[in-house]
Amino acid sequence: LLRSLSSSQRDRLCVVLVRARNPNNIGAVARAMHGFGFTDLRLVNEYSVPLERARSAVDASDILAAAKEFASVDDAVADCHLVVGTTAVGERKREHPLHTLAQGGEMLCAALAQRRPSMRVALLFGSEKTGLSNEELSHCQWLLTIPMHTTEGIRHASMNLGQAAAVCLYELIREREASALNETQPSATAADLERLTTLFSEVLAGIGYAKRRPAGAEPGEVRRMVRRLQLSQSDARRLIGILRQILWKIGAST
Amino acid sequence: LLRSLSSSQRDRLCVVLVRARNPNNIGAVARAMHGFGFTDLRLVNEYSVPLERARSAVDASDILAAAKEFASVDDAVADCHLVVGTTAVGERKREHPLHTLAQGGEMLCAALAQRRPSMRVALLFGSEKTGLSNEELSHCQWLLTIPMHTTEGIRHASMNLGQAAAVCLYELIREREASALNETQPSATAADLERLTTLFSEVLAGIGYAKRRPAGAEPGEVRRMVRRLQLSQSDARRLIGILRQILWKIGAST
Repeated sequence: LLRSLSSSQRDRLCVVLVRARNPNNIGAVARAMHGFGFTDLRLVNEYSVPLERARSAVDASDILAAAKEFASVDDAVADCHLVVGTTAVGERKREHPLHTLAQGGEMLCAALAQRRPSMRVALLFGSEKTGLSNEELSHCQWLLTIPMHTTEGIRHASMNLGQAAAVCLYELIREREASALNETQPSATAADLERLTTLFSEVLAGIGYAKRRPAGAEPGEVRRMVRRLQLSQSDARRLIGILRQILWKIGAST
Repeated sequence: LLRSLSSSQRDRLCVVLVRARNPNNIGAVARAMHGFGFTDLRLVNEYSVPLERARSAVDASDILAAAKEFASVDDAVADCHLVVGTTAVGERKREHPLHTLAQGGEMLCAALAQRRPSMRVALLFGSEKTGLSNEELSHCQWLLTIPMHTTEGIRHASMNLGQAAAVCLYELIREREASALNETQPSATAADLERLTTLFSEVLAGIGYAKRRPAGAEPGEVRRMVRRLQLSQSDARRLIGILRQILWKIGAST
């Protein structure tokens, strides 16, 4: 299993938007890149209007400011050692190896993690209406697809460009091993749980529950239930205090 | 060895947007749900304007047409057995278990895969500006976070709502190993947990605990503790019965 990508490894990924027209989408792609720690955005367009509009939008970031424009896919990926296209399956005749995002993401990460500082990887996204053309796809070594749902064999409508980019970039930074994010709360000791079990049984007896429902108040059953709660130390202590006070209240009143 | 969620399992996930204002974002969430095969969209809002606007937009789908509106989080998740919130880390004091999307996704899938047709799972997204409030978070058993990049300890700006939802839903449909999908006890509904919370608060007041330790008896704190217990349906029902009998005993004796 791979570890997560370092900053310098992330810097080696170029996100290439081909014929993206909607400035909001370009801005959304830049935001996702920023959020996941990627920096190199490239646009292939006949016009530079969409990028200018995106730059003037509220969320204009360093990434948009530094984005480069190219006249062709060829130029945009010239310095890249691996070029990968994104596609919706089944739209046209496939002439490339196709990988799901989970598989392809692993391959992209492996390429980015190579010990070779000059190694660059391009990830291409086509226009939302038409995707990448055959000519554009011909620059790619292989293709990546986000697995979409199908109903009766018909693939569902695709997401917008900002969403597709976010999902792909997420896959690249997704942890490949489960790493604990929680300083998990220290759990209750067996001694605390046993004290809790005893107090709980006394309450069940005190309120008459044990008489009405003997099965539910049976010692083994109470003990198992207390363990099922997976209590933290502090919650266990708090419940002990509460049960004591219930007993005191019941006792004081009988 | 890979297994994905069936259609009927996906139907058990409710995506709940709390105070979403931007119709484009609501539309984007619906598109991502459609793309990944989810169907149940719920909105919690004072106004129904955003949903109406989203419905009249170009991409209005069956999902938007069927989306339901609720006045409160409580109402929106009443039929759900597991309620999970999404959050950016470090925004406020954490009082819930927090899982990365990869870990939490596994947990969500396990819940959806339970052999119990009525099992429902809610995934909450807050407003883009403020996220979920503490009150809204208090309805959640645990929280999910999309791991974002940090620079010098500062977390990068988050993505928009449509992107966040797409990334989370992708994680749920991403192929995973079958070993993760373990059968567990059916868990309690949000409605049962809320009833338990109310009864518990009444007991704390009745025994004088609320007066002695106001912090521990504060409604949000009681609600969070009840959710931390991760109760099964049957244990929750049993505790409700026990708390009722404690109240009866206390009431009968005062």
